[in-house]
Amino acid sequence: MSGVCAFNDLMSKNSANYVSLSPLSFIKRAASVYPNRKAVVYNEIEYSWSETYKRCCKLASALKRLGVSRGDVVATMLPNVPAMYEAHFGIPMVGAVINAINIRLDAAAVAFILSHSKTKVLLVDPELAGVVSKALSLLEGRSPVVINVRDDSYTQGSEVGDLEYETLLDAETDVGGWQLPSDEWDAIALGYTSGTTGDPKGVVTHHRGAYLNAVSNVLSWSLPQEVTYLWTLPLFHCNGWCFPWTMAAIAGTNVCLRRVDAKQIVALIKRHGVTHYCGAPIVHSMIADAVQGGVDEFSHKVHGLIAGAAPPASILERMENIGFDLTHVYGLTETYGPAAVCAKHADWDNLPLEQRVLLNGRQGVAYPLQEEVAVLDPETLLPVPFDGETVGEIMFKGNIVMKGYLENEKATKEAFSGGWFHSGDLAVVHPDGYLKITDRLKDIIISGGENISSLEVESVIDSHPSVHMVAVVAMPDSKWGEVPAAFVQLRDGCAVSEAELISYCKERLASFKTPKKIIFENLQTTSTGKIQKFHLRQKLAGAA
Amino acid sequence: MSGVCAFNDLMSKNSANYVSLSPLSFIKRAASVYPNRKAVVYNEIEYSWSETYKRCCKLASALKRLGVSRGDVVATMLPNVPAMYEAHFGIPMVGAVINAINIRLDAAAVAFILSHSKTKVLLVDPELAGVVSKALSLLEGRSPVVINVRDDSYTQGSEVGDLEYETLLDAETDVGGWQLPSDEWDAIALGYTSGTTGDPKGVVTHHRGAYLNAVSNVLSWSLPQEVTYLWTLPLFHCNGWCFPWTMAAIAGTNVCLRRVDAKQIVALIKRHGVTHYCGAPIVHSMIADAVQGGVDEFSHKVHGLIAGAAPPASILERMENIGFDLTHVYGLTETYGPAAVCAKHADWDNLPLEQRVLLNGRQGVAYPLQEEVAVLDPETLLPVPFDGETVGEIMFKGNIVMKGYLENEKATKEAFSGGWFHSGDLAVVHPDGYLKITDRLKDIIISGGENISSLEVESVIDSHPSVHMVAVVAMPDSKWGEVPAAFVQLRDGCAVSEAELISYCKERLASFKTPKKIIFENLQTTSTGKIQKFHLRQKLAGAA
Repeated sequence: MSGVCAFNDLMSKNSANYVSLSPLSFIKRAASVYPNRKAVVYNEIEYSWSETYKRCCKLASALKRLGVSRGDVVATMLPNVPAMYEAHFGIPMVGAVINAINIRLDAAAVAFILSHSKTKVLLVDPELAGVVSKALSLLEGRSPVVINVRDDSYTQGSEVGDLEYETLLDAETDVGGWQLPSDEWDAIALGYTSGTTGDPKGVVTHHRGAYLNAVSNVLSWSLPQEVTYLWTLPLFHCNGWCFPWTMAAIAGTNVCLRRVDAKQIVALIKRHGVTHYCGAPIVHSMIADAVQGGVDEFSHKVHGLIAGAAPPASILERMENIGFDLTHVYGLTETYGPAAVCAKHADWDNLPLEQRVLLNGRQGVAYPLQEEVAVLDPETLLPVPFDGETVGEIMFKGNIVMKGYLENEKATKEAFSGGWFHSGDLAVVHPDGYLKITDRLKDIIISGGENISSLEVESVIDSHPSVHMVAVVAMPDSKWGEVPAAFVQLRDGCAVSEAELISYCKERLASFKTPKKIIFENLQTTSTGKIQKFHLRQKLAGAA
Repeated sequence: MSGVCAFNDLMSKNSANYVSLSPLSFIKRAASVYPNRKAVVYNEIEYSWSETYKRCCKLASALKRLGVSRGDVVATMLPNVPAMYEAHFGIPMVGAVINAINIRLDAAAVAFILSHSKTKVLLVDPELAGVVSKALSLLEGRSPVVINVRDDSYTQGSEVGDLEYETLLDAETDVGGWQLPSDEWDAIALGYTSGTTGDPKGVVTHHRGAYLNAVSNVLSWSLPQEVTYLWTLPLFHCNGWCFPWTMAAIAGTNVCLRRVDAKQIVALIKRHGVTHYCGAPIVHSMIADAVQGGVDEFSHKVHGLIAGAAPPASILERMENIGFDLTHVYGLTETYGPAAVCAKHADWDNLPLEQRVLLNGRQGVAYPLQEEVAVLDPETLLPVPFDGETVGEIMFKGNIVMKGYLENEKATKEAFSGGWFHSGDLAVVHPDGYLKITDRLKDIIISGGENISSLEVESVIDSHPSVHMVAVVAMPDSKWGEVPAAFVQLRDGCAVSEAELISYCKERLASFKTPKKIIFENLQTTSTGKIQKFHLRQKLAGAA
């Protein structure tokens, strides 16, 4: 008998030694081991893990009563309130798929998502009743059942539909009726990408991946058991990077937050002893601005994850001055949020600030439980040399990569071509194996046959003391094909002319990389802190 | 189209979004992200993660050259030296199964294991050459290929066979030829239980479970990235409770240790800044004894996991006095080592010592990524009430439960009967859901129809100031069927008579629980710190 046979002829998987990996297991254990520990805090509301678990079970039971079952979609139009946290457990508990819709979207986009996802039930915050009722009016075919989620601390809003969240929960008594998915590959969430062109795509993720990335967050950030986590990051953004599930895995405390307000954030950090939070650079910058004192302002250490863009020197320095510790992560909706981390090394601590900025500004290495991140030539799929210069596309491989795009076989096939997930981001790899994004594929400016990284030009303009924000895009040019143009928002009270800024760039950049046009305006960012460059390109095209 | 279909009609698993869970991924990442960080330290030897990874790859390549392939068994007779650590990666890298044999076994037991497991290759330490060569002489049929693992710091030993470990590694140049298992359910390890009666059983574990328990150790102990781990726990004991893989997952430093010597342990803790270690109560007790000073003796906090028996008050108190923090875990070979943890609560810290001892002395709750531990009526499989009194059998369910016993279908079926893994340990559950072992099924003493917990009797005798160690077993009795008898080892320089001890018990125990006989002798423990009670019962039977 060969070795393999001896080991495989054993009894097959059974219910004692094989269970689907699902983050639902985390909340069950949190409620059982730490029933009285604070789970969710929102203004004057405080739920223990036992209470939160019961509320999630009741939500599941209520959804079942509404006819929701395995594979159905339940959507949310909610800010970071307790119901939004509960939705991340209650919805998958009935085998349904949570579709956390970006609450900054307009009615048409919401209508598209509700229709494309065949959403059966929709949870709505009073602040969003207006846009939702407009979206519902745009729907052809069957509308979802709407559940209003009242909020005593927000009384300006209105309601859509007949059902109310707390009333539904109050009517439920069954708290043990849910089950783990029979297959860990079952969908747990659906998230629509913002889509720089065309209709948004619906990213489908599964229980196995959500479980693993929730744990990966713990490893990546060395999270101990007693963390207090502030929800500055929208839960509708890649399901809060899997942190709802992470917090259950370590029985931490979730501090909810309806809107990102710097003064309130600082007050909550002090009031609840918040130790951890996540956000785009703008969130960290706002916090640093709002802190009046220095490192003595807080009696405890605060840790932030920063993503969406490399943290500029000014943010790193200001956060250090107030005693905050930042870690840079990178990922996409398709990778459940963070999939790479700029893992720190002890010997970096003693380097001068500007070197630390360069080192920590990189997107880094694979997230702990993500199998592989690589920078490959998109044609040959061969890795680029680790020379810090050769540009390739960032690709991922592992269990924390989406199932695919909902009802979009073409896009799914393209995304997985060659057995790698193609991120669409371009990067170089430094000699230490850390990758550094140079640009989005579509944000590259090709001028006279030369590739120009818009990020490189932006970082030069960003270093000018009068500049608050900048975005560089390609402008059509009859001679060069494309040339760089910069949209610049100045700091309050600062003034600088187009000619001055262009000459500032000329001193620091190759001539072909210097922007040929500067447009001064207030830049709009998405809810996740990103500037949508296609809007800027459209403006230029319109002006041309 | 139903919801389920829409989500399952997506492209199936592909190499971009599905990878076998295997702890081998951890060492690849550690070598890539932290190539220069210390991985393995042994006397004057220091290997970085890059070096350790290369050495494991070379071991894999050498094994392949020796004809080892998927499902073959490679065994070790090694103490906690670097080669033993490397074996935990190099062997599974070729798809083979590591069979880490208990080095305290005699030649007959080693021969049984080599034969039953069909071991193809055996790694041997010079200290164990004698017992191994005797075991090989007992083998019928083909002997395994033997690789001697020389150790410059241990020159007393001899060698068996022709191959030498370092020479084999030196001959290899291929370091990239290994692959993850194609199936995460593939066997990774084989571990023989000590077997209180009959032949030992070969517990087979798989890559998925090893991966999950390695991570579960991180969650359970809140392990940060920069730990230095001292190998006081034998690596042959449930593969060091999966800690070889845990250390790779967090790129910690492994400090190797040939034998448990209290003075050397204290010296190593100071020299290398050891932060974490594991062991049976005796290990912790030895350390506490060896520390001369108090809490100021160490400049850093040291954390210990304690298992094998509940930590007695004396150990908890002495460890606290030297500033060590102990966490109590419980598990079996069948559950990859720790599968339950006495998870601490912040409000326990302020309780008096004796209450802390009672709380921390419980086996507790499910390990973070273990699905379920429960105390069930062995007949009905219904949970016992959480009353701290009703006794049931501890059972497990989850991904961190063995595949089964090698070539032993009967024992496998029994162990999994009713869809639970039956531990054979008896316990009660306290009102907070924490379980507390009362006895091994076979260690129960049944006297006149009453069940007597040998643990209860032991804890009373153990509280006598002159007693160093105690073991209580059943002694045949013509009137009562069985009565308790106690084997007692006194502290050095202490004296107490049989009559005195019996009367000490009578004051504290029901009469039928009081031992009828006390035997004073030095108690032998197994390499894992356990007293093998069947030996003691045999002695009594022989004396009767």
